[in-house]
Amino acid sequence: MPSYKAPVEDMMFVLKDVLGAGQVFAEIPAYAEIDTDVVENVLEEAGRFCTEILQPLNMSGDAEGCRLEGGVVRTPKGFAEAYAAFCDAGWGGLSASPDHGGQGLPRTVQILVDEMLSASNLSFGLFPGLTRGAYEAIEAHGDEALKALYLPKMIAGTWTGAMALTEGGAGSDLGLLKATAVPRGDGSYTVTGSKIFISSGDHDMAENVIHLVLARLPDAPAGTRGISLFLCPKYLVDRDGTPGARNAISVGALEHKMGIHAQPTCVMNYDGCQGWLVGEEHRGLAAMFTMMNAERLFVGMQGLGVADASYQTAATYARERLQGRATDIAGTAPIIAHPDVRRMLLSMLSFIEAGRALSLFTALEMDKEKFHPDPDIRRVSGGLVALLTPVIKAALTDFGFEAAVLGQQVLGGHGYIREWGQEQFVRDARIAMIYEGTNGIQAQDLVLRKLPLDGGRPVRTFLGLIRETLEQADGSAEAAAQCAALREALAHLEQVTARLVDGDLAGSDERNAAATDYLRLFALVSFGWLWLRMTLVVLKKGEGADAHARRKIALGRFFAGRILPQAGALARQIDAGSAPVMALAAGDF
Amino acid sequence: MPSYKAPVEDMMFVLKDVLGAGQVFAEIPAYAEIDTDVVENVLEEAGRFCTEILQPLNMSGDAEGCRLEGGVVRTPKGFAEAYAAFCDAGWGGLSASPDHGGQGLPRTVQILVDEMLSASNLSFGLFPGLTRGAYEAIEAHGDEALKALYLPKMIAGTWTGAMALTEGGAGSDLGLLKATAVPRGDGSYTVTGSKIFISSGDHDMAENVIHLVLARLPDAPAGTRGISLFLCPKYLVDRDGTPGARNAISVGALEHKMGIHAQPTCVMNYDGCQGWLVGEEHRGLAAMFTMMNAERLFVGMQGLGVADASYQTAATYARERLQGRATDIAGTAPIIAHPDVRRMLLSMLSFIEAGRALSLFTALEMDKEKFHPDPDIRRVSGGLVALLTPVIKAALTDFGFEAAVLGQQVLGGHGYIREWGQEQFVRDARIAMIYEGTNGIQAQDLVLRKLPLDGGRPVRTFLGLIRETLEQADGSAEAAAQCAALREALAHLEQVTARLVDGDLAGSDERNAAATDYLRLFALVSFGWLWLRMTLVVLKKGEGADAHARRKIALGRFFAGRILPQAGALARQIDAGSAPVMALAAGDF
Repeated sequence: MPSYKAPVEDMMFVLKDVLGAGQVFAEIPAYAEIDTDVVENVLEEAGRFCTEILQPLNMSGDAEGCRLEGGVVRTPKGFAEAYAAFCDAGWGGLSASPDHGGQGLPRTVQILVDEMLSASNLSFGLFPGLTRGAYEAIEAHGDEALKALYLPKMIAGTWTGAMALTEGGAGSDLGLLKATAVPRGDGSYTVTGSKIFISSGDHDMAENVIHLVLARLPDAPAGTRGISLFLCPKYLVDRDGTPGARNAISVGALEHKMGIHAQPTCVMNYDGCQGWLVGEEHRGLAAMFTMMNAERLFVGMQGLGVADASYQTAATYARERLQGRATDIAGTAPIIAHPDVRRMLLSMLSFIEAGRALSLFTALEMDKEKFHPDPDIRRVSGGLVALLTPVIKAALTDFGFEAAVLGQQVLGGHGYIREWGQEQFVRDARIAMIYEGTNGIQAQDLVLRKLPLDGGRPVRTFLGLIRETLEQADGSAEAAAQCAALREALAHLEQVTARLVDGDLAGSDERNAAATDYLRLFALVSFGWLWLRMTLVVLKKGEGADAHARRKIALGRFFAGRILPQAGALARQIDAGSAPVMALAAGDF
Repeated sequence: MPSYKAPVEDMMFVLKDVLGAGQVFAEIPAYAEIDTDVVENVLEEAGRFCTEILQPLNMSGDAEGCRLEGGVVRTPKGFAEAYAAFCDAGWGGLSASPDHGGQGLPRTVQILVDEMLSASNLSFGLFPGLTRGAYEAIEAHGDEALKALYLPKMIAGTWTGAMALTEGGAGSDLGLLKATAVPRGDGSYTVTGSKIFISSGDHDMAENVIHLVLARLPDAPAGTRGISLFLCPKYLVDRDGTPGARNAISVGALEHKMGIHAQPTCVMNYDGCQGWLVGEEHRGLAAMFTMMNAERLFVGMQGLGVADASYQTAATYARERLQGRATDIAGTAPIIAHPDVRRMLLSMLSFIEAGRALSLFTALEMDKEKFHPDPDIRRVSGGLVALLTPVIKAALTDFGFEAAVLGQQVLGGHGYIREWGQEQFVRDARIAMIYEGTNGIQAQDLVLRKLPLDGGRPVRTFLGLIRETLEQADGSAEAAAQCAALREALAHLEQVTARLVDGDLAGSDERNAAATDYLRLFALVSFGWLWLRMTLVVLKKGEGADAHARRKIALGRFFAGRILPQAGALARQIDAGSAPVMALAAGDF
């Protein structure tokens, strides 16, 4: 059986000691009541809930899966009860606005809980994750009537949310979508179309499902500028918020997937159902992007969470499994004594901790962007969030999947069978590289849209922060090797960035051909930066202080020596340009 | 639905034009009758069989899986009939000795058929693959009576083979195994023990299953030097080869696995069954290694085959799926127009073709090792085979899995659901990195055993071949960039090799910590070498001659520019040594 315990100590180390979140919260009036002790208590409580309630349902949910019975989706045994407990404890509205019943905790806390949800039960975690994305979009773009009617129930978790974007002919390119909406004359619309890959599209865990559906109005221009967003509830809601008649929404099919079997991924038919416009006409994609950006950070946490669950299981197994001899141990050794097993575990863990630090850094910028009293700080933070969102989505899910594959490998044949749950982590982690915009799309977003954003200010700011840390570390003998490795990797990143922004790689094919390698390079340098920051904090306390300190130091050195050199190779690959990519005619593949 | 067509033209190009197999066959009396036209006909025929009979059963076999009913394993619908057709056509004994009814074709042909089997139906292909491993071990080590009784039926496929090595407490470390064998006094033995992860352990496709079981005799020394190999048939066989009474062998359970659902992976109980010694007492591991080396090459072909099946499906999809705009196309473009999609397809294909060339190079050395009249050539070939076997097993399955993950990514959400079969390829490919010795074990084998082999001669020979090709390419302007990239990567490999053999990295921890990165570096350089060889052949014909030539040129350049730079990073990672890997105490993980 897999084992998972929420790494609250590691989380608090980053939040408090590395990022100084307490200081930031103190500057934000909305967080006046929140100190890091409160945060730690919340995390401990969330960790307990995940370990005790959600993790025991993870393997059984995978084995049983969802079923479509008489047009209704049935979730696996125990899920409805667990969801009720989840809502009762108020986890659904953790970071939601107190105006509509939320607890108003910072995004930094929310994403750590997201990590735990994903680690203990990714399929389950997607229900509240999507609900939050939906209510955030309604909160940002809906009119007051919609907000009053829908937000309290969604924040409480009584109703869940679903995003209905993709169609059979419109995936990465939403401009091609065909669903239609026609005004009814009473302020509502008739929405018609068929959508695929709709997570949480239908289920038996909540009393209503609120679909946010992208569709075209009759006079809509072609492409992405002619898409509007509609709220379509499964059950129509009367004025006092009571669900009544069934809306004309039906489940066409349940998809058979590689993983997340406990998640109902539906083909949804909107058969002339009644819907309400969210935001302005033809501006639906912008409204949807509010939801998608939050979801992208959430999906990044899925990659991270699954990686940590896989790591914890692999480390437990490696400490217990006796096999082979090691040089310094008489007789048969636990496999953790073998260097190649350690290499796998350290690769996983050095990514997990740096990935968490990057997510927390970004979430703290989100908190500042939303609530900081200083508009200049809000602007700078907004730029950093925009820049880092695709990096987190793609890098945390790519590295997260790779980590889960390593975690499976540590167990050998025992990782390939169901018993320890490692193979499920690989299957579940795989989706995160695909949905909410494939990782290739994220890379395009980073290179084509985010690098040039605001005249390139966000990326300059971010690279400046890295140089700042390097300057702070100057003169530390203990961190010298790490600094040298990071300095070299940063030089590669800076050089390639300049070429992509307005140098010889600024053409469209060049940027596209470079994008995936560039995002990975960007992530590696970011991780290296955060390892240096973590290292400097620990060194201040004294390197050998305790197991926690020893672990940080060892991981930072491992990352610098055995992972970061890949930055140089990525820069070289980008250097080769688009010519080798574009040479072959489509018919010659 | 996935699509697969055996790439016979590409296979023949490597075999005939690049490696000059026709010339080699002519030097070998056993292959006097075999010219490359014969080979091409066999491959065309095998390709047809795989496309028409095996591939249509791949997805249905995965969905249905194997079942254990009343102690007997039932394979999925259609498998037994397909296996009968397979045996009728003589595919089981393709490379087996004509002395026992085989067709005596070269290993080079066999592995190409293995690739096709794996591409069209990996679960199915494992049945004959293991049978071959088993009959090769019996042929090499069994006495004449055993050979006469078992080989003809196994070569015909009437009986299948299984390897019973792993136990619950003995996986990578076979020295820990506990199964016992006691002489009965009539030349046979009573074999008792429980084995896990036994592929093809039981099924309903053939009239008998021949288990090769590792066990200890009563007086056996501890560890790997006290293991003997026993042949234990499911049904005891009388003198004229008729199966009769059931032997005391039972299926304890069927494993629930991530993939290869149509393969019965069994817990097998040998409950005091009757067995016969294969080879000498206490020398069972050596006998088993005959089988395992052949199996390791076979497993490498599984990685390659699945990668090609995934590639072909992804390329078809990418040519047809319209999504997004490309710079040089008006309106919506097929996704193959997008540089990032091409990057994925080219990464897959440049590995597939180089991996196939490396496998064929090795198989041709196996043919020479076995049959060449010149003993010096046999010795050199034997060294190369020993050196390259772990590289092929590990690199082809690692890169093969990575390719399948890319092939899935090309399809986005459609790759995560069952529909196109891409997710099955990922699940099926994953096992190949684990069984027949995990890829970590292969890396240890390469660094600790194969580099020092015969005073280092095999590795010197191999690196010498690469330098030879570089010298031949000298002066070719068209190949200059490829040569430069390969020369640099080779320098890294040579330098690291020297340090591992008798330099500063020759200590046990250093070698172990370097092993996995080293094997990958070794494979990348080998692939780069074979791309240069393929390129030189094509350039001689004229670069733009036809689509085939254009494809080779483009792929070779892509590999040199966009993949080979990783060699430098791997060398740097090895350079960091074992210190960052060993720093942390086991309890601090």
